[in-house]
Amino acid sequence: MKHVVCGIDLGGTNSPFGFVEKDGNIAGGSAVKTTDYGTFEDYINALLDEIGKTQSKLKETKIVGFGIGAPNGNYYTGTVQDAPNLKWKGRLEFAKMLSGKTGLPAYLTNDANAAAIGEKLFGNAKGMKDFIIITLGTGLGSGIYCGGQLLYGSTGFAGEVGHIVVDFSGRPCGCGRKGCLEQYASATGIKKTVIEMLADGKKESMLRKYTEDEIDGKTIHDAAKQGDKLALEAFEYTGEILGKALANAVAFSSPEAIFLFGGLANAGEYIFEPAKRHMENNMLNNFRGTVKLLPSGLKENTAAILGAAALCWNEI
Amino acid sequence: MKHVVCGIDLGGTNSPFGFVEKDGNIAGGSAVKTTDYGTFEDYINALLDEIGKTQSKLKETKIVGFGIGAPNGNYYTGTVQDAPNLKWKGRLEFAKMLSGKTGLPAYLTNDANAAAIGEKLFGNAKGMKDFIIITLGTGLGSGIYCGGQLLYGSTGFAGEVGHIVVDFSGRPCGCGRKGCLEQYASATGIKKTVIEMLADGKKESMLRKYTEDEIDGKTIHDAAKQGDKLALEAFEYTGEILGKALANAVAFSSPEAIFLFGGLANAGEYIFEPAKRHMENNMLNNFRGTVKLLPSGLKENTAAILGAAALCWNEI
Repeated sequence: MKHVVCGIDLGGTNSPFGFVEKDGNIAGGSAVKTTDYGTFEDYINALLDEIGKTQSKLKETKIVGFGIGAPNGNYYTGTVQDAPNLKWKGRLEFAKMLSGKTGLPAYLTNDANAAAIGEKLFGNAKGMKDFIIITLGTGLGSGIYCGGQLLYGSTGFAGEVGHIVVDFSGRPCGCGRKGCLEQYASATGIKKTVIEMLADGKKESMLRKYTEDEIDGKTIHDAAKQGDKLALEAFEYTGEILGKALANAVAFSSPEAIFLFGGLANAGEYIFEPAKRHMENNMLNNFRGTVKLLPSGLKENTAAILGAAALCWNEI
Repeated sequence: MKHVVCGIDLGGTNSPFGFVEKDGNIAGGSAVKTTDYGTFEDYINALLDEIGKTQSKLKETKIVGFGIGAPNGNYYTGTVQDAPNLKWKGRLEFAKMLSGKTGLPAYLTNDANAAAIGEKLFGNAKGMKDFIIITLGTGLGSGIYCGGQLLYGSTGFAGEVGHIVVDFSGRPCGCGRKGCLEQYASATGIKKTVIEMLADGKKESMLRKYTEDEIDGKTIHDAAKQGDKLALEAFEYTGEILGKALANAVAFSSPEAIFLFGGLANAGEYIFEPAKRHMENNMLNNFRGTVKLLPSGLKENTAAILGAAALCWNEI
C-alpha cells in the first residue's frame, strides 16, 4: 500500500490536487473549478468527491493527510481569511473542515510558504537551513527559512516581502499603501514599468504594437530576447529594485540562497543578471559573495501541489 | 557552591565583566581597560587575571563558563573580526583562547544578539518566541528572535537592521554605502539631523548655544523636554524613519514585540511615540495592532554583561 499526502492548491479559478509520495513522486491527481461553487461547503464536498473518484482509479494508494496552499492562508489557524481572489469572504475553516469530514490530519499555509517547504523537501533547497523563496507572479510572494524553520512569526503571516515598501511615495498597491516591492518586482510590476516607459514617448520599441492588455511578462520577455531596448531597460529597472530589496533582506536574515520562482523568473538571465548585480553592489560588506541567487528546482505546474503536500509530510 | 557564568562585554574602551547566576543575579564583577593592552593575548591574560582576583574575593562561587558580547562577534566561529573600534585587527580567537586557558566552555556573539538573549532570559521578552531588540547607541544594533531561536543566518551575521538602507542616495555610512538606517535612527543619527536643521538657519532653537561637539542625545532630549521646536522636530523625523523601517521589518518576521534599548531609547516618549505612530500608519493591514513597541527590561549598565552571560547559560 502506497502512502500519499493529498496536496491541494486553492487557486482563484482552479483547485488542482495531487497524491504525493514521501519522495515527491506524484502518483495521480485532478482538479475542481473553484468558481463553480456558491458556498465554501459545496466546494469542499465537490473537492472531496473528486479526490475520492481520482483515488479509486489508482490501486493500493492510501491518503495519510492533506496539505493545502492557499492565498491569505494562516498556518496557525488552518484558515483562509478574506482572500482577494476568492468570492467566499470571512474566515474559511479549510483545514478543520477537511479533517472533520475525513478524520485525517490537514495542514494549511499560504502559497509562498508552501513553495518554500516544497523547495526544501523536493527542490533545490535540500539541506539548507537559511533561504528565501520569492515567487514573482501577479504579485510577489515569499517564504523564509531561518535556522531550519519556516518563519511564521507571531501572527502566522511573516514573510510578506512583497509588501516591504521600497518607496513610500511610490506606486499605489492593492494593500492600500504605496510603493510596495510587488508593484515593481512582479509580472504586474514590470508591465507597469513598461507602460510608464512607453507613455514617456521617447523610445522606439516593438512593444508599441501591442495593446495594454497584450503587454505581459511573456511579450516583454520576447521583446527583450529580440534586443528591444525598452524591454531590456524595463528588466534592468526591475532587477535594480528587486536586487536592492534583496540586499536589505539579506541584512535581516543572512540566507545561504534566494530562489526566484514563477512567471517573471522564467525570463531567466534577463531578470537574474540585473537582480544579482544590484544585490551584490548594494550589500553590506559582511554578506558580499555569501548569497546565491538561484532558480527554483520545482516545475511550475506541479510546484504548488508539491509544496502543499510537503507541508503535511513535514508534520506527520 | 554558587554556579555562575562570567559575562564579558568587550567594549572599545572598557571590558566590564560580571558573575551572573542562572536567575540573572550578579554576584560580583569588575573590569579591565581594553585600550591598555598592545596585543590581544596580553589583554586576555590581564582579563583572566582580573577575573581570578575578583572571584577570589567572593566565597563559594564556581565559574561554569564564559559568555562574551563583542562588536563584530561571530557566534559560529567564536571570533571577532576587524571591529572598527578595536586596535587589534584580523581575526581574534576570543572564545577559543578563553576556553583553552581555562578548560571551560566559552561562547561569543555580537553585542546586539547578546542583548536579545539577555532580554529573553532576564528582561521583558520572557516567554516570547518572535521579537526584535533594537539598540539605539552610537549606531543601531539589532538582535532578532524567530520561532524561539536567535536568528544567526548562514553567515552568523544576520540581524543587521542598522544597515538596512532606507534611502539609497542618503547620508554616507561608515560601512561605505549610503542611507543606512543607523545614519538616521541612533544617537549619531539624530545629532546629524539636528545639525542639518540648524544649518538650515531658519528655526529658533536653544540648541544653537551648543558647539557641535556638545550636541548629543542628551542635550537634544533636554531641549525637547523644554519644548524646543527644532529638537521636537528632530525626534519626529527620527521616529518617522525608524517607524517606517520597523513596519518593513514586521512584514519580514512578524514579531510580537520590538524593544528599544540604549542611549536614544532613554528619551522615552519623545522617540517611542513618533516611532510607534509611523510604524502603525505604515504597516500592512495583517500586522496592524499586532506589534508592541516596548522599552527593554534590562538596566543599561548591566545589560551587556547579563546578555553575554545569558548566551552561555542558554548553551550549557
